[in-house]
Amino acid sequence: MTHKHSYTLKEIADFLEVELLGDPQCEIHGLGTLNGAAPGQLSFLSNPFYTDQLSSCKASAIIISEKFAESCPGNKLISPAPYVSFAKATGLFAELASSESQGAIHESAIIHESAQLGENVSVAANVVIEAGVSIGANSVIGVGSYIGESSSIEKNAKLYNGVSIYHKVSIGENVIIHSGAVIGADGFGFAFDGAASVKIHQLGGVVIGDDVEIGANTTIDRGAIEDTVIGNGVKMDNQVQVAHNVKIGDHTMLCGCSGVGGSTTIGKYCIVGGGVGIIGHLKIVDKVHIGALACINQSISEPGVYTSGTPQQKTSDWKRNAIRFQQLDSIAKRLKELEKSTDKP
Amino acid sequence: MTHKHSYTLKEIADFLEVELLGDPQCEIHGLGTLNGAAPGQLSFLSNPFYTDQLSSCKASAIIISEKFAESCPGNKLISPAPYVSFAKATGLFAELASSESQGAIHESAIIHESAQLGENVSVAANVVIEAGVSIGANSVIGVGSYIGESSSIEKNAKLYNGVSIYHKVSIGENVIIHSGAVIGADGFGFAFDGAASVKIHQLGGVVIGDDVEIGANTTIDRGAIEDTVIGNGVKMDNQVQVAHNVKIGDHTMLCGCSGVGGSTTIGKYCIVGGGVGIIGHLKIVDKVHIGALACINQSISEPGVYTSGTPQQKTSDWKRNAIRFQQLDSIAKRLKELEKSTDKP
Amino acid sequence: MTHKHSYTLKEIADFLEVELLGDPQCEIHGLGTLNGAAPGQLSFLSNPFYTDQLSSCKASAIIISEKFAESCPGNKLISPAPYVSFAKATGLFAELASSESQGAIHESAIIHESAQLGENVSVAANVVIEAGVSIGANSVIGVGSYIGESSSIEKNAKLYNGVSIYHKVSIGENVIIHSGAVIGADGFGFAFDGAASVKIHQLGGVVIGDDVEIGANTTIDRGAIEDTVIGNGVKMDNQVQVAHNVKIGDHTMLCGCSGVGGSTTIGKYCIVGGGVGIIGHLKIVDKVHIGALACINQSISEPGVYTSGTPQQKTSDWKRNAIRFQQLDSIAKRLKELEKSTDKP
Repeated sequence: MTHKHSYTLKEIADFLEVELLGDPQCEIHGLGTLNGAAPGQLSFLSNPFYTDQLSSCKASAIIISEKFAESCPGNKLISPAPYVSFAKATGLFAELASSESQGAIHESAIIHESAQLGENVSVAANVVIEAGVSIGANSVIGVGSYIGESSSIEKNAKLYNGVSIYHKVSIGENVIIHSGAVIGADGFGFAFDGAASVKIHQLGGVVIGDDVEIGANTTIDRGAIEDTVIGNGVKMDNQVQVAHNVKIGDHTMLCGCSGVGGSTTIGKYCIVGGGVGIIGHLKIVDKVHIGALACINQSISEPGVYTSGTPQQKTSDWKRNAIRFQQLDSIAKRLKELEKSTDKP
Repeated sequence: MTHKHSYTLKEIADFLEVELLGDPQCEIHGLGTLNGAAPGQLSFLSNPFYTDQLSSCKASAIIISEKFAESCPGNKLISPAPYVSFAKATGLFAELASSESQGAIHESAIIHESAQLGENVSVAANVVIEAGVSIGANSVIGVGSYIGESSSIEKNAKLYNGVSIYHKVSIGENVIIHSGAVIGADGFGFAFDGAASVKIHQLGGVVIGDDVEIGANTTIDRGAIEDTVIGNGVKMDNQVQVAHNVKIGDHTMLCGCSGVGGSTTIGKYCIVGGGVGIIGHLKIVDKVHIGALACINQSISEPGVYTSGTPQQKTSDWKRNAIRFQQLDSIAKRLKELEKSTDKP
Repeated sequence: MTHKHSYTLKEIADFLEVELLGDPQCEIHGLGTLNGAAPGQLSFLSNPFYTDQLSSCKASAIIISEKFAESCPGNKLISPAPYVSFAKATGLFAELASSESQGAIHESAIIHESAQLGENVSVAANVVIEAGVSIGANSVIGVGSYIGESSSIEKNAKLYNGVSIYHKVSIGENVIIHSGAVIGADGFGFAFDGAASVKIHQLGGVVIGDDVEIGANTTIDRGAIEDTVIGNGVKMDNQVQVAHNVKIGDHTMLCGCSGVGGSTTIGKYCIVGGGVGIIGHLKIVDKVHIGALACINQSISEPGVYTSGTPQQKTSDWKRNAIRFQQLDSIAKRLKELEKSTDKP
């Protein structure tokens, strides 16, 4: 990998557009947590809960809000949003780890003559690009990825190795797609004829907005008739499943192993927790936050935080309570009876 | 893609073997929902709930049952099962989107000399086919797919790109397998020797019937000693996990992200909802329908619809109830006490 | 495949280091269950529950504990741990199924000149190995697998086809990785700036111990700043998801479709059931066993067996009880009221 080994604190402050208090020439060659940082690293305080770790922190500088700046003895970068500044700083060091040779087309790549590649597009070994594909400038297509007929990817995309894009998939700018993701496979649609399932060929496509990130082995199915649509800024973790005809609003996040059933619409700025299942044909409004492993089988019309399930217990305790769950309606009715009988004095 | 841009309504009626009422020369160049269809498209009414959308529907023709035909002013195709007819009609337009050059073997494919390919088999770029493999006529093996030693695939298969078939897997006719599916990886079997897990090498295979569809990134493990068996007409959505030694009966459907534990047997014509988990060593009879995200940890001996879990709630409400779940056995006992004490007058 | 068709019972007894009672020359050409074994096969009795199958078992020999040896009429191998001995015996027959030509580097493999391959390493077709990679002796890299820059794999690894290893991933000895697994993709980390999610570039790596097995389509993310760490002897089934910064202790097993949230620490010798979700930032001690599909959202400080959820029911019954779950806090309070009122005589 090509390495720029370090930045001065001044360079980082300028990049982050934050105020620097301390030594501008201090060399920073990496990032660390308050607890784990070594000298030469930059750390950050975002959660006030960790303020007492400041005194023992070995980092050479800390990104911190003005409010807590006094508690921090050494070099500091004053940010109104330390966690966001930290996120931006990670970009400085990530660039160093990038090994792609920009603009190279590997000799083993198989690119249809009708495909259109923008300036500076990199295509790695064993990639296959079908007819009518267009790829925007500066995009990087990782080893062994496949892009089906008539699909398009806008500029600055980063596809890691082994990504599968079926035909007629449209992908916006600045999109990151991790290994093993499959975009545009057939939605799960069948009509039962009384003896067997008749396939409903999936004729729609997938439309993915700008600034989307899609995790490893995540799957997004093409629409049955119309398109499956993923809004701008949507982030999906690994092993997320998005069924056909789903619409996901801008900036919504789907955590690992969550799944969204066919034709469901999710609003903007939602957070879908890990392992959550949302059944098909629902409507979830904006700014809904769903807790891990919840099963959502009714539409949600009000922003807020939602959960389902029961808390973990030792299995021996759980079993006794779980049996009672099966009697719950009867328990409630018996209680009602009792209330009635004791009411009558 | 090669395109036949349209069919006359007469051609479609003949293909579907249904009665045509209206203009036989009406040109149909696509399909649409009642709500979304444009002129030139064919739509369908399956759910009577949507009957009032008929009047505003812009489709040039509608597939409809005799019962509702009167409510439909324009061209119509009278079908005893409009949804099934619609499913069949999708096949007409899907064919147009297929880009494979039939019978071509890409020069980059690596095919062992002992492999046997039927007539008209297509093998795309970067495919690897190992020794002793046999592939039936008209099958299409997508870019970069891998077929392990001594595996067999019958005629008319469609494997999308990046499918992995391990050794000694047997696949029937007319099977569709989507990208990233892995068939025949080792089942998860270990014997614990008191300090570490000793691998049980998985010596069985996988046997998949005819007319099966397997979704993207779905995994079906090989058997430990005997085979894992998937019946005819089984349909699996994306990210389904089928463990070793499982037997799945004909025409059963497994929705996205469902998982079946080792040695479990599922009957025919079951529907396993999205995200459902069925633990190992169970027996589920025919015609069982399991609701989304249910955890099935007991065998099911009676057809019907099954669920587990609790309904979604605002987390603040949920928390109060969830704590009570942990007291449920005690609540039930106290109620019993109270009933006894108030019984004695 | 290369085949050694059989072993004598004496050869097997010597390999397993167990006592042989019966005919040492008896030819064994495979393994079978008590119920399914044919003559010429070796079976085993591990669970005393199946003792009555011994009399009808057709196997030519049985691995059995001394305690039950009398119930077994024919040839037997006396083992203190029949299931472990059986597991070891599967290795004898699995070797026969291995088709790799040891030490071969396929001509289509693309290996960076700076990569270091130990003795006898096999690299299959279409593999891509980036700069600075090192691979230990006797390792087998399956068709189309990808190994990113500066990653290392110790000796005796077996990677099946289509495995993705990102950059700076470190993998121990004797590791098995199944198709479609993705190791080292970016953790799911973003800082919300009020309008959009700012990517936290993931600068840590992944460190995987010795004797680990990783199932098909399983994903293990790289750490945000420090590494994600998988201990020695850990076994992961298919479609497991391990988020960034997770630490998993030695010999812990994660069953299919389970998921572990970011920064969670799991102890040694735990068993995480199928479909379990463990949220982020928790600490689970050693020897915890979590039942299938449980949602773990609190740390566990005591070894034992844990569960959450409710039992399956017919949906009609479930619905009535599930509604009552939403009233549970009120039910408990009303019960309390009633107890108070009936207390006062």
